[in-house]
Amino acid sequence: MKNLTEGNITEAVIKAIEGTREPRAKEVMSSLIRHLHAFVKEVQLTQDEWEAAIEYLYDTGQISGPTRNEFVLTSDTLGISSLVDIINSNPDGGTEASVLGPFYIEGSKMVEIGTNLIGDSEGEPTVVSGIVRTFGGDPIEGAVIDLWQTAANGLYENQDPDQPENNLRCRMLTDKDGYYQFTTIKPVSYKVPTDGPVGRMLDLQGRHAWRPSHLHYKVSADGHRNLITEVFYEGDEYIDEDSVFGVRESLAIPYNLITSEEEAEKYGVSSPFYRVKFDFELEAL
Amino acid sequence: MKNLTEGNITEAVIKAIEGTREPRAKEVMSSLIRHLHAFVKEVQLTQDEWEAAIEYLYDTGQISGPTRNEFVLTSDTLGISSLVDIINSNPDGGTEASVLGPFYIEGSKMVEIGTNLIGDSEGEPTVVSGIVRTFGGDPIEGAVIDLWQTAANGLYENQDPDQPENNLRCRMLTDKDGYYQFTTIKPVSYKVPTDGPVGRMLDLQGRHAWRPSHLHYKVSADGHRNLITEVFYEGDEYIDEDSVFGVRESLAIPYNLITSEEEAEKYGVSSPFYRVKFDFELEAL
Repeated sequence: MKNLTEGNITEAVIKAIEGTREPRAKEVMSSLIRHLHAFVKEVQLTQDEWEAAIEYLYDTGQISGPTRNEFVLTSDTLGISSLVDIINSNPDGGTEASVLGPFYIEGSKMVEIGTNLIGDSEGEPTVVSGIVRTFGGDPIEGAVIDLWQTAANGLYENQDPDQPENNLRCRMLTDKDGYYQFTTIKPVSYKVPTDGPVGRMLDLQGRHAWRPSHLHYKVSADGHRNLITEVFYEGDEYIDEDSVFGVRESLAIPYNLITSEEEAEKYGVSSPFYRVKFDFELEAL
Repeated sequence: MKNLTEGNITEAVIKAIEGTREPRAKEVMSSLIRHLHAFVKEVQLTQDEWEAAIEYLYDTGQISGPTRNEFVLTSDTLGISSLVDIINSNPDGGTEASVLGPFYIEGSKMVEIGTNLIGDSEGEPTVVSGIVRTFGGDPIEGAVIDLWQTAANGLYENQDPDQPENNLRCRMLTDKDGYYQFTTIKPVSYKVPTDGPVGRMLDLQGRHAWRPSHLHYKVSADGHRNLITEVFYEGDEYIDEDSVFGVRESLAIPYNLITSEEEAEKYGVSSPFYRVKFDFELEAL
């Protein structure tokens, strides 16, 4: 290892990790090392550029904390998270996955089917419901619907000290028919946070930070693979240029405007309101 | 961007950054995106593995701070730093570069030529000297030699609250003949920090964390490219298995044991002591 050159250093590093304890870890790390080295060689990375990369990572680490993960946002805005989602989606069917994003929090409050989550939130009332079932099979009782979304100002509760804890978040168990239902506000399109390294990167890349409006879900049930996905409003102006590449055709759906007073009364909302239906199909393990 | 697949998402991301303001930034980021995506596809990265990667980066950010940069250490232990050094070394000659590492601090104390840096440090006295010159040309007066090294316990001053500030660090200007000289202790081989994510990675990879003993230098002079390098003891037991791939044949040199009392007196040290000579050749800009 004394005569390292551009031509042999990659193999020297691969050789250094040949004692890796798990074959899969060795495979993944070897591939990562080969690709990172190939990148450095391809662009003939300068010292200043290497320093800029280290500074990006350092700053991303410093701005991250329990309620913000700028590394997730970096992965999202470079399309890596979506690529991982696509690779791990079942090609045979079931609901498509989409990015987890940086705003999920474990342990949201458990609520009953039919709960109105609006509280003091501004926005257009929206009744959301659907069925959770096994892909190609029966409805699932007791599946956990874990929902999070932004308020009308485009901020998630954990980004915004002015929102109460658990605002526009909840967990809910499906009933014996696999049914879930809740009332919320129509989500709005919003910008991913631009006050950190990702914002500076997007700016350098000449890109905007907007995401089309969506309801964000983690759906889980015994004997099934967890599903993390987003359900988009198909008419959103950013539906074709999501800054984190999360949109899938099958996840973009209509919001039906209901003007019937009778229907509004049935759900305990004022008229007009939006009605959204979406069924989740989970892959059985 | 609604019909993203494993086959087209990389091009969609490249297209999203086509408005990047600087051509070089666009080239570097496009190449990085292509290689990171190719890595994810090649190993068919799982969600759990993606989460482990994010956790690695997050933990690396949390342990980093003003006196510790675990991202630099990550780059070092994956051979990326050395690859960048090699790519940016002048192929026509001059002193070879080596990794900056995470322990450099700007603004070390300025001292006179001949200063004894040992203070209360334990270790074997070593007199180091040499000439700084333009590659293929004349000695440089007023070049800045910026030195840092570990104490006998294998720790740099900024890793060790028990060492006084500036311990075994200094800056020095060469005289009209390009000459520098200082007295220090013989450096020892040491482990890179293993109490963070890099330590866990090395452990998983079945690697040790040792570095062969060296004096670390930043050498700079008007009209010349800065040189960051390390000068190794050629007899060190880890000379062929540096955990950060920093050794170059031309940077591994002998330490001559001097037993003459007369020589020892000349340098104000006790006999026996080590004598090390190393000339730096800087690339003119």
